[in-house]
Formats: sequence, C-alpha cells, structure tokens
Amino acid sequence: MPEPGLSPLQSTLPTAASHFGAHVLGRSRTAGAEAAPVAQPAVAGVLPGASGVLPGASGVLPGVAAPAVPTPAVAVPAGPAPAVPAPVVAVSAAAGTPGPGLERVLRGPSGLGTAGLSLVRAVEPPAAVAAEAPVEVLEIPGLYYHPVPEPDPVRVAEIGRRIKEWAVEEVELYPEEWEKQFDGFSVGRYMVACHPDAPTVDHLMIATRLMVAENAVDDYYCEDHGGSPIGLGGRLLLAHTALDPLHTTREYQPQWAESLRADAPRRAYRSAMEYFGRQATPSQADRFRHDMARLHLGYLAEGSWAQTDHTPEVWEYLVMRQFNNFRPCPTITDTVGGYELPADLHAQPAMQRVIALAGNACTIVNDLYSYTKELAAPGRHLNLPVVIADREDLSDQDGYLKAVEVHNDLMRDFEAEAAALAAACPVPGVQRFLRGVATWVDGNHYWHQTNTYRYSLPDFW
Amino acid sequence: MPEPGLSPLQSTLPTAASHFGAHVLGRSRTAGAEAAPVAQPAVAGVLPGASGVLPGASGVLPGVAAPAVPTPAVAVPAGPAPAVPAPVVAVSAAAGTPGPGLERVLRGPSGLGTAGLSLVRAVEPPAAVAAEAPVEVLEIPGLYYHPVPEPDPVRVAEIGRRIKEWAVEEVELYPEEWEKQFDGFSVGRYMVACHPDAPTVDHLMIATRLMVAENAVDDYYCEDHGGSPIGLGGRLLLAHTALDPLHTTREYQPQWAESLRADAPRRAYRSAMEYFGRQATPSQADRFRHDMARLHLGYLAEGSWAQTDHTPEVWEYLVMRQFNNFRPCPTITDTVGGYELPADLHAQPAMQRVIALAGNACTIVNDLYSYTKELAAPGRHLNLPVVIADREDLSDQDGYLKAVEVHNDLMRDFEAEAAALAAACPVPGVQRFLRGVATWVDGNHYWHQTNTYRYSLPDFW
Repeated sequence: MPEPGLSPLQSTLPTAASHFGAHVLGRSRTAGAEAAPVAQPAVAGVLPGASGVLPGASGVLPGVAAPAVPTPAVAVPAGPAPAVPAPVVAVSAAAGTPGPGLERVLRGPSGLGTAGLSLVRAVEPPAAVAAEAPVEVLEIPGLYYHPVPEPDPVRVAEIGRRIKEWAVEEVELYPEEWEKQFDGFSVGRYMVACHPDAPTVDHLMIATRLMVAENAVDDYYCEDHGGSPIGLGGRLLLAHTALDPLHTTREYQPQWAESLRADAPRRAYRSAMEYFGRQATPSQADRFRHDMARLHLGYLAEGSWAQTDHTPEVWEYLVMRQFNNFRPCPTITDTVGGYELPADLHAQPAMQRVIALAGNACTIVNDLYSYTKELAAPGRHLNLPVVIADREDLSDQDGYLKAVEVHNDLMRDFEAEAAALAAACPVPGVQRFLRGVATWVDGNHYWHQTNTYRYSLPDFW
Repeated sequence: MPEPGLSPLQSTLPTAASHFGAHVLGRSRTAGAEAAPVAQPAVAGVLPGASGVLPGASGVLPGVAAPAVPTPAVAVPAGPAPAVPAPVVAVSAAAGTPGPGLERVLRGPSGLGTAGLSLVRAVEPPAAVAAEAPVEVLEIPGLYYHPVPEPDPVRVAEIGRRIKEWAVEEVELYPEEWEKQFDGFSVGRYMVACHPDAPTVDHLMIATRLMVAENAVDDYYCEDHGGSPIGLGGRLLLAHTALDPLHTTREYQPQWAESLRADAPRRAYRSAMEYFGRQATPSQADRFRHDMARLHLGYLAEGSWAQTDHTPEVWEYLVMRQFNNFRPCPTITDTVGGYELPADLHAQPAMQRVIALAGNACTIVNDLYSYTKELAAPGRHLNLPVVIADREDLSDQDGYLKAVEVHNDLMRDFEAEAAALAAACPVPGVQRFLRGVATWVDGNHYWHQTNTYRYSLPDFW
C-alpha cells in the first residue's frame, strides 16, 4: 500500500529544479550505479532552479545524460480555468519526442517580468536553512528520477505546526505516545516538495490533511495499527462515506453522520474532505472520490490475496498496485494549485493514461524504497521485487533489479505520453496540470529517497 | 445485491405514462392496502400516456391520491449538450413544491408539432400486442411507485434477439443449459421500460449489455453461480480493469489484456464497456467507471459481512446498499438517450444527492420484491426487512412494513430534491437527465412488479 507512514525524515537532498518541460525534453537523469550519495547546498527560490547534481550516467537503463538545463515553467494564474471544449485526443503509447513548438510551450515564457509565472512560488528561504545541506540520501543505482529543489523550509515548518494541531485537536488522530512518530513523519516536507506551486499554506494544508488521513486509514484498517483483511470491506466502505456521503431517510441519516466521529480514520477522512471540499470544485471533488474508491478497491484486492495466501502473477500485482496507488495525491494538484483542470479534459483517455502511468511510477518507487522495511515486518508483504522473484523464478537481487526496470519504463512512458498530450492539447490548464503531476512524481521520489530513518536499501550492488 | 437475475418475466403491468413532471408535481400514486392485483389493457404509444390504473389510496404512508394526469415530457434533441458553466446549486433536503413556472418547464411544450419532443419515442406498437394484457402483477400494499407505459414490444423482441446473440456468440456468457434461463430474464423488456427515449435499438443495446454483464459478475463472483466472499477483492478488481484499464509496461500489458478473456464476467464487462465507450463521451465513461467502482465496493462490504457473519445496523446496511446499488444503470440514461448531462452539472452536490436517492429507492424496491426469494435461498441473505427486524427487534412483518416506509421516504425525497434541482437549474440537459432517472426508477419497479416468475410476496397483509 502507499505507505509513506509516520516516521521521521532526517535528511534531504538538495537538487536541481524539476520542470515538466525538462522531463519531456529528455533533460533528465538516470542515477548511475557509480553515483555516490550527494550532498549539495540547497538552491531554492524561484525558477530557474539549480544546476544538476547527479551525473547522468546510466545504470540499469541507458541514461539520458544531458545536463539539467533549468527551464522556467509556465503557470496560469490561480482561479478557475475557462470552460474549454474537450478535444478528442488520441495519443499512442509510442508518442515521440516533442518538436520545437512544444519545447517552447513547455519551457514557458522567459525574459524580464516572467518570474512570476514560475511554477515554484517566489519565496526566498532563510539563508541559514539553505546552508544546512543534508548529507545522506538513498541511491538506487539505475533508478530513473528527477531531483527537486529543496522544499521551502518556512512552509515546511508552518505545515508541520498546523497539521499537528489539526491531528491532535481537530480529529484526535492518535494516542499521545505516537506523537513523536507523527512529528517524524514530516508530511509537511513531503507535501511542500510535491506542491511547489501552491499559492498559500492553506492550499498546502488541503493536500497535507488528506495525506495524513489516507495514511491513518491504511494504518488502522489495513496495516500496522490493528489492520486486517478480515472485515476490511465493511470498514473501508463505512470510511468511504466520509468522502462520498450516505443519502438516506431522516431516521437513519443522523446515525450515519454520528458514525463519522467513531474512530480516527473516519474523523480524519471527514475533516480532510470537508476542507478539501471548500477549495475544490464539485468536479474536482468527484474526481477525488473516484480516485479514493479506486484506492479502496486496491486495498481490498491486496487484503483478499493476503487472506488466501495468494501470490499474484506480476501483471496481477501491477493491476492491484494501479489501484492501491498514490493516484489520489497527484490528481489534486490543480486544487492545491488554485486552478482547475476541466472535467472533460481530465476524462480524456490520453489524460487518464498519463495519470495512471504517473501514479504507477510513484507507487513502484514506494515498493523499491520500502523493500527492506517490508521484508523485516511480520508476515509476508507483497511488493514488486518479491512478486517478480517469486513468479519469474529469479533471485531476490534480480527480482529487485527487474523491478527497477519496470519503474523506469513506467516513468519514461509517463513522460512520453505527457509530452504527446501536451502537444495535442495546448491548453494552459492542461499544461499546468501535467507539470503538476510530474512535479508530484518527483517530490514523491525525493521524500522516499531522503527518508533514511524509514527506509534502507538492500545490498544488491 | 441488485439482482434482477436470469429468470423469466411472465407478465406485465399495463400502466399509465410515467413522467418526471407528473412525479414532482405530486400527480403520483400510492398503492393502497386494499388495491387488488390489476389487469388492464395496455395503452401504448406516444405521450400523453394512459390514465391511471391504481386507485391512489394510502397504505403505509398518506397517499397522494390525485388522478394521474398525463403530462407531456420535455426532451432535447439527441446529441451533445452545449457546454454550460456549472452553476452553484444549493438545494436543501426540505425542498418544496415547484411553482407554476417550474410546472410549465416540467410539462414541456404542448400544442401542434410538439409530439416529437416527447420523452417516449413515437412508435406505434402492433395492436395485437397491445391487446395482450398481462393478468398478474405483484402488489405491495402501501408501496409508493409510478406505473409506466407498456414497453414497446417490437423493441423488446429485437433486444431479446440481439442480446442473446451477443451473449452466446460474442462473449460466451453461459453454458448451454442456462440458455432458457437467460431467455427468461427478459432483459429487453427491462431495458425498454427503463429507457423509452432511446433513439435507436443500438442505444438500448448499450444499456442491455451492461445490465447483463453486471448480473454475470454478480452471479459468478458473488452469488448464485460459484460466488464467494473469499478472494472476492482480487476477482472483482481484475474484472474492474475491463472497465478501467491497466496501464503498465509492454512486457506485462499483453498478459493483462489476455486475462480479460479468461472468464465470462470479464468477457462480458470488456465487451459491454467497449460498446458503451463508442457511444459515451469520455466524461460519461468516467462517470460510469466511478459508479462501477462504487458497486464493487458495495459487493465487498456485503461480502466481508457475510464472511464474519455480521448483521449490520440498519444505517450500516443502508450504506452498503447505497453502493451495492442500481446506480450505474440510471446514470447512463443520457448516453442511452443520445445526449450528455455535462460533467460539471453531474458533479453538483444537488445532482449527486438526487442520483443517490434514486438509486437507493430502486435498490430497496429490489429488497422488497426479492424478500421471499432470498429467504428461500441457502444461507442468510441480508435485505432491509431482515436487518430492520433483527436490529430493531421487530416481527418479520413489521420489519417488512417498515422497509416499505423507508422506500417510500426515499422516493419522496428523490422527487422533492429532483424538483428543486430542476427549478434551480433550468438547463435542458438537466431536465431531461432528471426525467430519465425518474423513468428508470419507474421502469425498474415495473420489472420487479411484473416478474412473477422470479418474485413473490410474503403473506403480511
């Protein structure tokens, strides 16, 4: 399950700016097997971002070793996007490299006065914080990813303060003895890295509450804190109604409403959804509910396999993981950014494919970084390396290395399809949404890579 | 589970025309406790429909005994609706009676030349068929419902022929020995009654295939034909990908694609979704996928309770039944009708509430008519009368009668909210969609009421 969990983030990776434009143009990196853990001063502020950090040598996959050229991002002003008729976009999986016209669109405006259009908001971090360079990151040789700018420490601190207040005072999320663990989760750092274009801290809090609530449901119902596949269908559905409410008769409606206060997962879902609903359009809320229904279906498939001790085929595992997936997080990027990807554009098959590929790349990253953690946990925990090794009769090491390849293929397909879609649908809301999703993918990797408290790597290289 | 199942429909109820306008204006019926089973000549053809059949005396609830005044329905021409900015519609649960202006809107145009705008298509049925009046219907005293025109027998026959061809030749849905049972299901009659405004038989086939596929998944995976709650999460998720496809790497994608041919439920889902997708807009397809995810979550909650032998509270049961629900059927009314309710209007909270209430009314109708059938089946089958009797310490009879009240409250709330929404949002696509949902509710009741092969009533009156 997507389980960024509740543990400290003790170090960070300062990196170059991550721009959708740069990704789709191939100005991105493959961490080489020889790439050492990197310590770099953080370069923060507006785009253009810092220069590249990781030499782009290839590992498992042929690297794309072009230097990281900072590319200003295009951003539309916050606010509802104008109604745009939905074009019929047909994009093949083999979508190619964008041409010069697209490159210009993705780079966005340049020159005097265009800094305000940057995806990353214009806040200068305190110099002292910028100097505190993290010294330890995890490096998976050959993993294809994009470094991100160090998240704004002012925002990180403010989110940390506010989310704790929400968790403790508003939704009574955890018993007192878990407080340190909650602090250590550093969800603020995660969300600030994933949503650099959020216009305000209030916008960031929308994503942060939902992330915490999603983890609480997973922990309490499915995994670490009393979870079980037995009866999971009932528990998850009752919690789902905190997002997608019951509409029944006056006699029974109040009993349902009261149930939303009955446990921490439901309190968290209900409250986080209420805040989200104040900012989101009805179509954005509907999109989110759908993605959460997918997530819960994924949990239930995984739970059913755990109950029957079934090891799925690799493709079956990939199906489950497309649903038990980070998808609900990147797909709120527009709400958090203060604009809207129109519903008819969101529903286009090409956009759905891009979103699915992005979510899958995010999720397999989680499998790779949590591999040793899950091996050490009680019981058998399915993840992609384990399933590949089992089903394809490979060593643990080869299973892991093949899982890295699967991740990289998903990333490259995501980027190719996103570029093709951006070219086919040059609408500002679409461009910005695609960049937002790409940024979320990178921020998610950043959070995993720098979470050395929680994660470690196997000795496979 | 919504289980119209595979059994013959042996009789029909000829009834008055059912119009959304009539509903919301209170020109509707409560079948009285004293109402005898009715045999009436069918009155078919275009609106205005036939006059009322059932005396409107009250049973459990105070009846709305006004005579059934036929009301021409408004219909927009088939084709995509124009893009309409989403108004913010706030409608309270206590929405009142529409005023004279709304009444005019709901009645639609009248006078020479307006017959073509009727919701019911202008096809004269063969006189011989109209004369073959069914003689037996089930009457639940006090049940609030609306009679519908006899479904066009020409269309019913054509759908029956085509759906069998599809089931046998295209998706190999069932073994030979089930053929008679499949014929007896009379899904054509069901769908023609629910979608009188479908412009062509091809449009009707979209709904028919999906209905058959949904029943196949329920039967094979959950209920009668080898279903079980054990491992259900995995099975349903793999089937769900026939609607919401996997996006993975080139190595694994073909194995998943091949899996969609592996069993009858997946073959049926895949094929039915493919046909649906040719007619639906991307937003309509997204809406359908979401509703199907809800349905599968409902199945899984019910399955988890069966596995743990848990009898839910009444409100918990109503939650499960809002998901394990007919909702995916009425919500495709616009696709089947050849138009589109714009996505931003579909997502409005008031519209979501109307849809949920309509789906819930449809679904509790199923509980009421299938009560004796489920009691007779092996194992304990939850339905609303059983849960109310158990949880509220009532006799079986009183549990059943209270379930009728719950249904009636849901119906009245649906109608009141639909009227308020129609008043607040006088857009043709909205008006037609609301009428289409109301028509589906009535057609669904008709199918249950006339399915005396499958259903019977308890001796509670």
